[in-house]
Amino acid sequence: MRTFIIVGHKATTSPSFSLEDIPGTSGRLDILCRAVTAAFVLSHGIRKDVCVYLILLGGQEPKTIRLCGETLRHLNPDERTTAALLKKALAVPATEEWAMSTSGIFVRAGGLERLLADLKDVSLIYLREDGEDVRGLEEGLPADAAYILGDHLGMTAEEERLIGQAGAKTVSLGATSLHADHCIVLLNWILDANLFTAER
Amino acid sequence: MRTFIIVGHKATTSPSFSLEDIPGTSGRLDILCRAVTAAFVLSHGIRKDVCVYLILLGGQEPKTIRLCGETLRHLNPDERTTAALLKKALAVPATEEWAMSTSGIFVRAGGLERLLADLKDVSLIYLREDGEDVRGLEEGLPADAAYILGDHLGMTAEEERLIGQAGAKTVSLGATSLHADHCIVLLNWILDANLFTAER
Repeated sequence: MRTFIIVGHKATTSPSFSLEDIPGTSGRLDILCRAVTAAFVLSHGIRKDVCVYLILLGGQEPKTIRLCGETLRHLNPDERTTAALLKKALAVPATEEWAMSTSGIFVRAGGLERLLADLKDVSLIYLREDGEDVRGLEEGLPADAAYILGDHLGMTAEEERLIGQAGAKTVSLGATSLHADHCIVLLNWILDANLFTAER
Repeated sequence: MRTFIIVGHKATTSPSFSLEDIPGTSGRLDILCRAVTAAFVLSHGIRKDVCVYLILLGGQEPKTIRLCGETLRHLNPDERTTAALLKKALAVPATEEWAMSTSGIFVRAGGLERLLADLKDVSLIYLREDGEDVRGLEEGLPADAAYILGDHLGMTAEEERLIGQAGAKTVSLGATSLHADHCIVLLNWILDANLFTAER
């Protein structure tokens, strides 16, 4: 399973944002919408082997939304459709257990720390401009890793401490700072082609 | 100058589409909006050395919109803002000459054939799944080329004839069929890093 984790530091945990002004009313949920599309959509279909976790920190208590390619339905490439799906997920009460909103989309209470505990047996890769360059990694990118990305605000020191403690390797896609969704497009392509791996 | 040309076969040439339902009312102008964002936006700024041409074929007569990074203003990463800018461009009467709508955005009458005539001195690269693999190009991707991409409908036989006649080289980013905006993200990254070029 190819997993992407994106942290939305201001992203709303409430469904009461406006689809007519997603960036202005949802704490930049638009960034997470584009990350979802980048992770899943192909020209003719959805990537089944991808899982996305969105960590929403713009409410009183954090929420996490999980999207699973295997069962994901109703995802279109446009931003508004994705935002409407996330809106539905946020309308479902978030408890300790995952609750499904629409096919392949789940929500629960909790944030990054809890998610990292769940993924303790998974290789973690943290994307940051000053990490080890992806093109020079001796062992390549692991196919089954969870890739952790920040939003426009980057990670806090506390989040970086958690990520480090969880054993994540810090990797860079280059010196130019790119949007999270663009990083995901690149990671999917690199992983699809087994690019920069030791076998090459 | 790094140039991207995207052909929108059903894309409206009228400003009367709805920002509340871009995919459903504009002939999939959303595809072109995402291509624009992929071409220009960096995490902290706009790529100045990029130029985008959108060929809109979903009206009675074709129109072309040109976006120039050097002077481009008001572009945000979200889809709706980009669509609003294109709406303004489509409200400007399209004549034989480029007319500016907002800073860095221009419109005129005409389609692919006319644009290819303008670019007769520029290297052309046509992206198609069955082209020569980008990773095996002996001379790499040219930095100053114009990269031609289709939308969800692909190119017509007549368009392919024009593109071939103009001397374009057909290049592939891999066997997996990707959305145009994702191809542009990959091209920007490959060109930024001089990846797969002869100098490496």
